[in-house]
Amino acid sequence: MNIQNKLNFSRRIRRTPFTSSVEKYGVTGFSVVNHTLLPKSFQNSIEEDYLHLQEYAQIWDVGCQRQVEIKGKDALKLIELMTPRSISGLKPGKCLYIPLTDENGGIINDPILIKKSTDHYYLSVADSDVLLWARGLAIGLRLNVRIREPDIWPLAIQGPRAADVLAKVFGERIHSIKKFNFDYFSLDGSSQLIAKTGYSRIGGYEIYLSRPELGASLWETILEAGRSENIRPGSPNIIDRVEAGLLSYGNEMTVENTPLECNMDKFVDINKQENYIGKKVLLRQIKYGIKRRIKGVIYEGPKLPTISRPLQVFDTDKRTIVGSLTSGAFSPHFESNIGVGMINKGYWDNNKEILINISAKEFRAGLIKDLPLIK
Amino acid sequence: MNIQNKLNFSRRIRRTPFTSSVEKYGVTGFSVVNHTLLPKSFQNSIEEDYLHLQEYAQIWDVGCQRQVEIKGKDALKLIELMTPRSISGLKPGKCLYIPLTDENGGIINDPILIKKSTDHYYLSVADSDVLLWARGLAIGLRLNVRIREPDIWPLAIQGPRAADVLAKVFGERIHSIKKFNFDYFSLDGSSQLIAKTGYSRIGGYEIYLSRPELGASLWETILEAGRSENIRPGSPNIIDRVEAGLLSYGNEMTVENTPLECNMDKFVDINKQENYIGKKVLLRQIKYGIKRRIKGVIYEGPKLPTISRPLQVFDTDKRTIVGSLTSGAFSPHFESNIGVGMINKGYWDNNKEILINISAKEFRAGLIKDLPLIK
Repeated sequence: MNIQNKLNFSRRIRRTPFTSSVEKYGVTGFSVVNHTLLPKSFQNSIEEDYLHLQEYAQIWDVGCQRQVEIKGKDALKLIELMTPRSISGLKPGKCLYIPLTDENGGIINDPILIKKSTDHYYLSVADSDVLLWARGLAIGLRLNVRIREPDIWPLAIQGPRAADVLAKVFGERIHSIKKFNFDYFSLDGSSQLIAKTGYSRIGGYEIYLSRPELGASLWETILEAGRSENIRPGSPNIIDRVEAGLLSYGNEMTVENTPLECNMDKFVDINKQENYIGKKVLLRQIKYGIKRRIKGVIYEGPKLPTISRPLQVFDTDKRTIVGSLTSGAFSPHFESNIGVGMINKGYWDNNKEILINISAKEFRAGLIKDLPLIK
Repeated sequence: MNIQNKLNFSRRIRRTPFTSSVEKYGVTGFSVVNHTLLPKSFQNSIEEDYLHLQEYAQIWDVGCQRQVEIKGKDALKLIELMTPRSISGLKPGKCLYIPLTDENGGIINDPILIKKSTDHYYLSVADSDVLLWARGLAIGLRLNVRIREPDIWPLAIQGPRAADVLAKVFGERIHSIKKFNFDYFSLDGSSQLIAKTGYSRIGGYEIYLSRPELGASLWETILEAGRSENIRPGSPNIIDRVEAGLLSYGNEMTVENTPLECNMDKFVDINKQENYIGKKVLLRQIKYGIKRRIKGVIYEGPKLPTISRPLQVFDTDKRTIVGSLTSGAFSPHFESNIGVGMINKGYWDNNKEILINISAKEFRAGLIKDLPLIK
């Protein structure tokens, strides 16, 4: 462990209702997302956690996925304005992944939209203050909406055994939730929203806990219920998410990138009737094409440490920079190093040979790959 | 060092042009502000750093103080709308501390405003995405402004010897900058904005480096020039800032607090003619009074560790909670523990006796104090 990497705690970096539980169960490292702690590692290696996630169930403190609640007569109008994806046909009880764009078509965030009712939505956001963006727009446009960050803290149960674990806590009805749907379940006399969503390839559930004081007991209840499913604490796993092509806002893409550059072509509805911020730029980009695109890369061993800073990707001539890898790790599945990153036009074809620049002296041979690496 | 406190690095938590330098010079801990690394400690104790800062000069990587650049015909109009402080009389070359408020009078951020020209401003922001707030407002109101985060990274030189250090690098003219003013200085053929501002009691300078590729060499140049002033790397010091009553957004106050609750009475201009967001609420609060207020506290030894989570403040009956301490440390100056926090009405008078709740079993006797603790 590098002594330079200590994180200094303060109130400004918020704890979640589950932070004390992850500390009790041996968290070893955090990240900070939305001014909130995100546990990133426990006592096992990332590879051990990856292998465990493919087979069993894990409980993740993803309280940092803060909610932006938009409620009121103009709620739908505001959300339509914020995203290139059409949401007019969305029914209550549904979740939808929607990129949010600015005037340049740049990505502001890539939240999950949760439709509670016709006039009532949550945006479960990645790392940027969508709350301020939405409120600024609403004030400027004098929309009839109420926007706030509710006291709601997601807890994820992921992996192939997640449903069996949660059935013991919330009943067999958990099995009937379809992917990207949610329903309400009873917990200590309260009603809790549980969605079949999550930031892993195999997927699972997210409990949107609206009673933070129940955080520690819910954590223990789920761990206890999941004992026979071999549940254990975990966190979003970089090997798993790179294999699945799950992007991380701030890592793979920033406000400098449009959804079309980020494999989100199908979330930019070319026939969307409503106006939205960035529409002109995105329609032009659909017409004239893009200059770079997020792709996967598989590159040769031996095993390298997890990427914590972008690595440059070169053409085989070792001179032409053709992109950068923004996230990566060693995959036991591929028995190779894998990554995702932004690759320039002309170099992004499947199986194109490239070189990854590891250090001043070292390159590793690799191949560009379509995402996801594992379907 | 607590092994649970590791910070996991990724591109999403941005490095600054000075991060490699602070690593070279032995940084031991970071915080994360505006999606960016803020070095928080080096190999000395916080107390040693505090004592050094009172006497010599320190160089701080405060690149996390991101800039929101607002430019264009409606720039002044937008900024007037965002703050209860009147800025109509501000001249180019001046800096001004301005709270930004929402419709409820809640603080969105408390940046330093830098007026470059009539139509050109920077907001040097604390930890929230003011960029999104300002852009949302501007789009909604169809204002004629261009808003972006420029590639500018502040580097602070603080302490009583800061001017002498910088005079060696930028010339004697540095001595002529008045407090909360800025001027331009030459660096490697470029022109750099240097302001007489900073997050310490004694103050100093902030260099708004617009040529990030010069970060490492500027760092070395300043360290070398400051050798006879005993300069060393440091960071915003909690003992110093608590003594000075310098608040930290996210720690002492959040969007739930108004400027009037945060000792910012003089930054809410009761005679401000222009409309601004939150005006109605703040004028009402001026009329009817507030229910809580940020105050200082001095409480008895022995020395306690730095506060990393709020401590409850009780009335002397040990039953009535009267507020909470949000930041605190042991002060060599007072030879006591000191802190700042939000204290309820009826308990905030100077020298009021209170008890600080340290743990399940322990209270420490203390006195409420006006801020700053040291003038």
